[in-house]
Amino acid sequence: MTRKLRLAAVGLGRWAYIQADSYTKSDKIELVTCFSRNPEKRQKFAAKYGCQTDESYEALLAREDVDAVIVTVPNDAHADVIVQAIEAGKHVCVEKPISITMEDAKKIEDALAKHPDIKFTVLHSARRLGGLRKMKELIDSGRVGQVSTIEVNFSNERGLEIKPGNWRGNPAQAPGGPLTQLGVHQIDNIQYLLGRVKRVFCFGKPMYTEVENATVTQTICELESGQQAYIAANWACPGVFSINVFGTKANLYYTLDFSWWSNSDVTDKYTTLKIQEFATMTDDPDNRELKISDVEIPICNHLLDEMEEFADAVLEGGSLEIGVKEATHNVAVVLAAVKSMYEGRIVEVSEIEG
Amino acid sequence: MTRKLRLAAVGLGRWAYIQADSYTKSDKIELVTCFSRNPEKRQKFAAKYGCQTDESYEALLAREDVDAVIVTVPNDAHADVIVQAIEAGKHVCVEKPISITMEDAKKIEDALAKHPDIKFTVLHSARRLGGLRKMKELIDSGRVGQVSTIEVNFSNERGLEIKPGNWRGNPAQAPGGPLTQLGVHQIDNIQYLLGRVKRVFCFGKPMYTEVENATVTQTICELESGQQAYIAANWACPGVFSINVFGTKANLYYTLDFSWWSNSDVTDKYTTLKIQEFATMTDDPDNRELKISDVEIPICNHLLDEMEEFADAVLEGGSLEIGVKEATHNVAVVLAAVKSMYEGRIVEVSEIEG
Repeated sequence: MTRKLRLAAVGLGRWAYIQADSYTKSDKIELVTCFSRNPEKRQKFAAKYGCQTDESYEALLAREDVDAVIVTVPNDAHADVIVQAIEAGKHVCVEKPISITMEDAKKIEDALAKHPDIKFTVLHSARRLGGLRKMKELIDSGRVGQVSTIEVNFSNERGLEIKPGNWRGNPAQAPGGPLTQLGVHQIDNIQYLLGRVKRVFCFGKPMYTEVENATVTQTICELESGQQAYIAANWACPGVFSINVFGTKANLYYTLDFSWWSNSDVTDKYTTLKIQEFATMTDDPDNRELKISDVEIPICNHLLDEMEEFADAVLEGGSLEIGVKEATHNVAVVLAAVKSMYEGRIVEVSEIEG
Repeated sequence: MTRKLRLAAVGLGRWAYIQADSYTKSDKIELVTCFSRNPEKRQKFAAKYGCQTDESYEALLAREDVDAVIVTVPNDAHADVIVQAIEAGKHVCVEKPISITMEDAKKIEDALAKHPDIKFTVLHSARRLGGLRKMKELIDSGRVGQVSTIEVNFSNERGLEIKPGNWRGNPAQAPGGPLTQLGVHQIDNIQYLLGRVKRVFCFGKPMYTEVENATVTQTICELESGQQAYIAANWACPGVFSINVFGTKANLYYTLDFSWWSNSDVTDKYTTLKIQEFATMTDDPDNRELKISDVEIPICNHLLDEMEEFADAVLEGGSLEIGVKEATHNVAVVLAAVKSMYEGRIVEVSEIEG
């Protein structure tokens, strides 16, 4: 029997628990130890999951019984924590976004180039949803015909509650507000379904909030393929997660009940995918009927599946869908949209990617 | 008993039949006569609806038994036909869009200014749908909270079938393709629900078509209120008509089965409106549940209702929702989006409106 991936959790805030609730159920992963600079946070996390703790990040990285770290420190601390792990010979997975600056993404890329045996992935879990897998299959099979546009929306009420001083309200720490925190998931989904974004335009602003950061954003994109995308990322409404795909033969409508986003065991059960096609096609445009049908969605586990792919990559040399290149592109699209929002012009993603 | 509005139909293409199928059922309207330059078209229309014909537009306008004309000639002929009717003292209703240039809209405005007793309206039927009436009520009542964004989509497969030479494929006759023909309905809906558009940005292009005109467009807007809008108008996919509204307390999702768009007796029966609200609200963002409920939609008749409002305005002095000002704004937003698409920059609607 293959041994388990021996994992250490670094950064013990809210999302570390959401992830641990999921991966501690995997028979491919063993949580060995954890670290946060705050001793109380370490004790609390270790007590909940029955793992050890380390008193410094250096001590954790020096352990021989740790294969890999899962990084859930704040976004602007990702690069230093990741590079340190890579240089210590540890494999790394990190919560999305990989970084909030291109400089930080480059630091990670450079460290990986120097350590080609290190496995690295970014946890863009959304593309692991069963509905995304099914949509990709329907597009690739030709059933949707030729796709012209995609509309994605990932929104929640977070902006209504952010207090001044919170990092989410600071444009330097969360560029574009919900674009960095929510939109980046959907940008990865667009990349997964249709490919890379070429140029963007964004309108956005703070609305119904006490902070200066944008809480409402709408972005349109041209993709490298010539197809187009609309991305809504909004922090001023009840939770939304939807993806609509428009093709010459069919349209796809995917929605997820955001209430269940963090419970990845059941997320897929609270999603629906519909396909809209012609029921009758005649020469008379006033005499055609459309039909809309439910599509069965394979039940996946978006948080668990990404961690097990990572475990397989480390233990068995399996491939990783989302490497530094894909994850950096997602951030470049966010930063291009934010630049567009502030400058009121089209921004080419290549301006950001260099 | 009040007498009926004595109506003449001018321009006898496909849409003249769709409208006549509806207004000939009204007990407020009597179809008296019709005119097209093509005698066969006149005879066919008159035979179907049991009305008279006139051999020239001048003869029709000279009749004393005609109160008003319904204009369904091609968009680029609207202004001349309308101005002639106004100068002959006839009330006028015209199919959307009012025009495809600001010059034509100005001609109509000037003629109306000289004839203040003439009743004039543009048949933006979509805002008469029961779902639109209900959405406006839900927004105005406060149940949706403060609205930040609206997303509208009106699309169909028309672009896949346009042959070179057809006016729809000509950017001068149908600026922005589906933006002029479909998007303008949704721009009027945005105006109805949230107010006027201030500035726009559009990506669009011909896709999957033999013609040079754009068949795929995506536009984002800032409204005068500061709220934002996304407008999809696409001629490369099965029919779509949807409106989503995002507010601090609730989101609204409206869809219409486009198969039934032209059968206005039943259109509303093939629509759905859902409201998404919080079922539970706690301090913990991972422990809130959303609920989504069907909203009952009043059954209206979008094509009949607009014509009966017009009849009431002429016969009883009733008011008209969509005058030259509202209709001209809708066209200005289309033309601003088209300009943005070609020039790759934000266009202020005031640049178009002057």
